[in-house]
Amino acid sequence: MAPHVRITDLTHGVPAFDVRAGSLALARAVQYVPPGIIIAVVDPGVGSTRRAIAVEVAGGRGIFLGPDNGLLGSGVAMAGGADRAFELSNTDLHLEAPGATFAGRDIFAPVAAFLANGGAIEEVGKEIDTASVMPGLVPVPSDEKHPVHGDGMRCEVTWVDAFGNCQLNVGPDDVAPYGPVLKLVMGEDVRSARVVSHYAEIDGGAIGAVVDSYGMIALSVDRGSASETLRLQSGDAVLVFAGDGGTTTSSVTLRLGN
Amino acid sequence: MAPHVRITDLTHGVPAFDVRAGSLALARAVQYVPPGIIIAVVDPGVGSTRRAIAVEVAGGRGIFLGPDNGLLGSGVAMAGGADRAFELSNTDLHLEAPGATFAGRDIFAPVAAFLANGGAIEEVGKEIDTASVMPGLVPVPSDEKHPVHGDGMRCEVTWVDAFGNCQLNVGPDDVAPYGPVLKLVMGEDVRSARVVSHYAEIDGGAIGAVVDSYGMIALSVDRGSASETLRLQSGDAVLVFAGDGGTTTSSVTLRLGN
Amino acid sequence: MAPHVRITDLTHGVPAFDVRAGSLALARAVQYVPPGIIIAVVDPGVGSTRRAIAVEVAGGRGIFLGPDNGLLGSGVAMAGGADRAFELSNTDLHLEAPGATFAGRDIFAPVAAFLANGGAIEEVGKEIDTASVMPGLVPVPSDEKHPVHGDGMRCEVTWVDAFGNCQLNVGPDDVAPYGPVLKLVMGEDVRSARVVSHYAEIDGGAIGAVVDSYGMIALSVDRGSASETLRLQSGDAVLVFAGDGGTTTSSVTLRLGN
Repeated sequence: MAPHVRITDLTHGVPAFDVRAGSLALARAVQYVPPGIIIAVVDPGVGSTRRAIAVEVAGGRGIFLGPDNGLLGSGVAMAGGADRAFELSNTDLHLEAPGATFAGRDIFAPVAAFLANGGAIEEVGKEIDTASVMPGLVPVPSDEKHPVHGDGMRCEVTWVDAFGNCQLNVGPDDVAPYGPVLKLVMGEDVRSARVVSHYAEIDGGAIGAVVDSYGMIALSVDRGSASETLRLQSGDAVLVFAGDGGTTTSSVTLRLGN
Repeated sequence: MAPHVRITDLTHGVPAFDVRAGSLALARAVQYVPPGIIIAVVDPGVGSTRRAIAVEVAGGRGIFLGPDNGLLGSGVAMAGGADRAFELSNTDLHLEAPGATFAGRDIFAPVAAFLANGGAIEEVGKEIDTASVMPGLVPVPSDEKHPVHGDGMRCEVTWVDAFGNCQLNVGPDDVAPYGPVLKLVMGEDVRSARVVSHYAEIDGGAIGAVVDSYGMIALSVDRGSASETLRLQSGDAVLVFAGDGGTTTSSVTLRLGN
Repeated sequence: MAPHVRITDLTHGVPAFDVRAGSLALARAVQYVPPGIIIAVVDPGVGSTRRAIAVEVAGGRGIFLGPDNGLLGSGVAMAGGADRAFELSNTDLHLEAPGATFAGRDIFAPVAAFLANGGAIEEVGKEIDTASVMPGLVPVPSDEKHPVHGDGMRCEVTWVDAFGNCQLNVGPDDVAPYGPVLKLVMGEDVRSARVVSHYAEIDGGAIGAVVDSYGMIALSVDRGSASETLRLQSGDAVLVFAGDGGTTTSSVTLRLGN
């Protein structure tokens, strides 16, 4: 339908049904993507009454197409915010499906082709309030008071990358008050992690709190998988407290896993 | 050899040696592919005496290149049927291989480049009878008489997708005689499945018989893997009988897995 | 930054941290790649003081960009050898990273775009001695004297492909002195393998020593995984001795694994 279009696959590696992982992958990539049309589909409710939407970003940065389930929010925000939004209610632009709708194939792709061929966004369907679009689901860290470890911060693993690094929902400024070595509490497991700026600075076998390439804190093991070592998955809670300041070993307070 | 060519990767996700899965993937995709040259390679007999062939489709829809092992048949049929066929016997067009032939790299890709550069299909090798090309391997459902469950239909799982949905070799018209709720017999496991048109209509934990996006019946679990739940794989048999009409629960006749 | 550039993904399937596997994948692909700019990144030491380099290949074949850790050596040699080398010390060409450097995104990609836009290689940083670039890591087979099996050759598995074929670091000329049937010793496991030129020549259940599509010897099982059958992984040793000449069965000397 639009053979002149240059297509870039950002990723096909988002876990099944994980809207938040897809949302974060989109938000991470969007600043490196040239202006254009972005299709994103992660939709456990596909085929339900969920709206299919188009969100136009201010300043000609482009148009996002996807389900109205929070997937687009963070990416749209990174790209400058929503200017206008439309529901893809003009079914004349959709492909006829042999059975249940395969939204990526039957709705989003042909609408993207229509837009890439110069079609007006006003024709994709009825305009909707940008405030009615479901926002991105970014968990916010919260204060934590612990009977043993004192004042801390409740964080969450937002992403486990292909190497097993566990990205948290906090940046270096957030963890700075807790000193150069963090105490991490994950269920009954208590660990020490030095804040470092490169994976290679992590000592063999130790846990590092790396300022990763997205500017967030990631728990990492040098040449290994922090996800396996710490048994952490996306969505898991990690409590952060002040560590020992890096001046003493923390062997006494550590209860090593396994 | 043909740097102007636009290449689209349809999939690299076909299981090793599974000619039928590759054949079905090709047949599903072909209606969405623009006219051109299609290379398909799934070949457990690579390097044997299996013929490499080119099949020209009627009406200028394009040319299929692949092994003569049934891989191309369903896709060619979906594209309009074979008009002419050739064996790729002109080895002048092939790359010299350092060892055993890697057919995709050494035969199909350079022949595709020759054709894309305007080479005549008559030059790829000697013409062969289209009737001599191995047809696609699509299993046909058959009648089933069961001492307990009565008259039914023996189906087969043709495909398990990335979400674990199990596509059967029957469409909605085939299962309609058995009513709105099907009784499924898989070995000693007996299950009930309501025929629905969207994944989201499946009740939590239940099995649904969804008319999928290819117009076929697929066994599905909402936000879960039917393949894991029912322990079904591609090629497994599923017997379909009339269910309870949807008016009563089927707890008595169900023997739940595990 | 360089939207006119045509990008070819050679592979994203190199195991994490495996510089040698990446090096071999690059060397295998490079002869089929048109002249241009090649980016390769497999770097367990990312973010450390490892140099990022550009290697210009003689004869206008192109420029390789990657870490100076041995990854580029074999590919550069296959492409004709290094003509000039530069360290990517001109940080004006790099992207500003929000945290630790993601070298592929922040260094190699923008430098590649600079070069693709006609930028001079002299501007990417200071020239370095090509002899100072870390060479590729290709293991060399060595002589082996065994108390039971006699004179042989110590080989190494360099690569396990997606089908489980185990490529060794020797070609057909290297194994020719040991006759048409090889005796393979892998730890306590002793096997017989006939040298064949196609996978389809391997008898059902038997091990074959196939001259693979890269011209190297690969241990293979017809329609199965030699890696699983022989419990071999990349880097494992395989001792090769003269077999029984193909005239007698080797059942007496075989100790079949599991």
